[in-house]
Amino acid sequence: MGGRDREGERDRLEFVGYLCFRHEIVGVVTEVGSNVKGFKVGDHAGVGTYVDSCGECEYCNDFVEVHCLKGSIFTFNGLDSDGTVTKGGYSSYIVVKERQVTCSQYCYRIPDGYPLDMAAPLLCAGITVYTPMMRHKMNQPGKSLGVIGLGGLGHMAVKFGKAFGLKVTVFSTSESKKEAALKLLGADKFVISSDKKQMESMTNSLDFIIDTASGDHPFDPYMSLLKVGGVLALVGFPSEVRLHPGSLSYGSRSIAGSLTGGTKETQAMLEFCAANKVYPEIELINIQYINEALERLVKRDVKYRFVIDIQNSLE
Amino acid sequence: MGGRDREGERDRLEFVGYLCFRHEIVGVVTEVGSNVKGFKVGDHAGVGTYVDSCGECEYCNDFVEVHCLKGSIFTFNGLDSDGTVTKGGYSSYIVVKERQVTCSQYCYRIPDGYPLDMAAPLLCAGITVYTPMMRHKMNQPGKSLGVIGLGGLGHMAVKFGKAFGLKVTVFSTSESKKEAALKLLGADKFVISSDKKQMESMTNSLDFIIDTASGDHPFDPYMSLLKVGGVLALVGFPSEVRLHPGSLSYGSRSIAGSLTGGTKETQAMLEFCAANKVYPEIELINIQYINEALERLVKRDVKYRFVIDIQNSLE
Repeated sequence: MGGRDREGERDRLEFVGYLCFRHEIVGVVTEVGSNVKGFKVGDHAGVGTYVDSCGECEYCNDFVEVHCLKGSIFTFNGLDSDGTVTKGGYSSYIVVKERQVTCSQYCYRIPDGYPLDMAAPLLCAGITVYTPMMRHKMNQPGKSLGVIGLGGLGHMAVKFGKAFGLKVTVFSTSESKKEAALKLLGADKFVISSDKKQMESMTNSLDFIIDTASGDHPFDPYMSLLKVGGVLALVGFPSEVRLHPGSLSYGSRSIAGSLTGGTKETQAMLEFCAANKVYPEIELINIQYINEALERLVKRDVKYRFVIDIQNSLE
Repeated sequence: MGGRDREGERDRLEFVGYLCFRHEIVGVVTEVGSNVKGFKVGDHAGVGTYVDSCGECEYCNDFVEVHCLKGSIFTFNGLDSDGTVTKGGYSSYIVVKERQVTCSQYCYRIPDGYPLDMAAPLLCAGITVYTPMMRHKMNQPGKSLGVIGLGGLGHMAVKFGKAFGLKVTVFSTSESKKEAALKLLGADKFVISSDKKQMESMTNSLDFIIDTASGDHPFDPYMSLLKVGGVLALVGFPSEVRLHPGSLSYGSRSIAGSLTGGTKETQAMLEFCAANKVYPEIELINIQYINEALERLVKRDVKYRFVIDIQNSLE
């Protein structure tokens, strides 16, 4: 244990533990540099999709470091400031930087009592849907939310929606997801997106849609489901976005991109989840299962996020 | 003169005068029904793109009657509540309805002293760019505005931009528009949109772009000019909107549709224009010139809006 008191390591902390694929990493702090203020050995800590940024530009100062003008450094397969390639969570331990401004940055406090394995998916899947929901004021009870796709991101959007007191409709291509959407996740409505009649019955009814589908799909049918001034937030990554201009103009509707959240919002989300008992659905696996897990991931056969138990896998 | 006291006409007023093509109509009030409160004979009045709506739905109550759930009635070629087809401004006089809520609706007061012929284009071109600028808080001095296209709508966006204290960049395919953009309209910068180098020099520099081009053009090059969180507002009507999802995601950027403004905002815009001496550039023509004007319009040869002088044409 001890500290990390070599030159250049005094603001670093080391932790081991659970992680989700690539860049959703949580664990228990094992060492802290002498300048680290927000963490002590034994604390629960987490890292999301980026581990550093310039810390000086308008976006860093505004705590949306993912948009850093010099580029944030990705947790996985990014080029770190010392020239090495970042390895993400596929490692026995991780050393991360703490930047102290008004909140800890790049490294998050996992609230006491929050299940460590369930915290991992919050750090990418969770914050990626939480951020556009907050930006578009979708934390106001009574509003209506549509969720396209029910994977790692989509299922978190449903959970946040219900925690915010929204009326949640899930859109899916597959009837097989209906029961989980309504019963496990608590959505209010389930719509098969290829069913024109079901879709049209929702015209002008939604304040906001969060589109988590990574595959290609038409946008126009969804845009018409939004109320005047409604927003479709794109967090999936189709090959292109293509729509009729009237889908935007007639109802003064918007399509808005979003990447992931800033450090301040990520910490706030973690605290919201702890206070409101919002827990991702996970499958906890050993590292030895990774190839099978990846194959299942390709087939979209996961409910709803794999989390690798690194510590137990290594013992 | 006198009134309009036949049954069903008591909230109507009649006026004659200038108009722009189709649905930008201003003139002098010649008759008023006994229930009309906001106008008297001799007042200057105007009508924009719609003359009626249900008056009861959430959008009418919110003064965005153009989004009326039962459909607003278009001033030109619309189906009026009595079953007749609306004729717009191609007429010797027009009779319109006044609805009194907190402001006059469907019919606007043209501020005293504002040149009547110049008021006409405000009622469609003006309000169509003013509305998304206000919605996206682009009336805050110091912000940076991009304007795509320099026709009837685009030139008004430049004028509003300068009146709001913005840094305005005009994007055009044609070098021939440069002098007018910078000298006549007062834009700060002029960029040829086909010039890749000029375009790239503007990366991440604009808070907002208003796209008034009606022809097809790529969207991705413009989206990359927006700052993080920036918005491109679409008021033109291309055949489709097609872009790479990264153009939205990477900078949390949006593309937002907008139709035209509500009655409350239209009246506010007229008062803003009078107070700040914002005047559209017009070519005043007689009705006898209409065919030539239409031919020139097709060739985009107009600076920047034709206004037909109906009264003098009829004498």
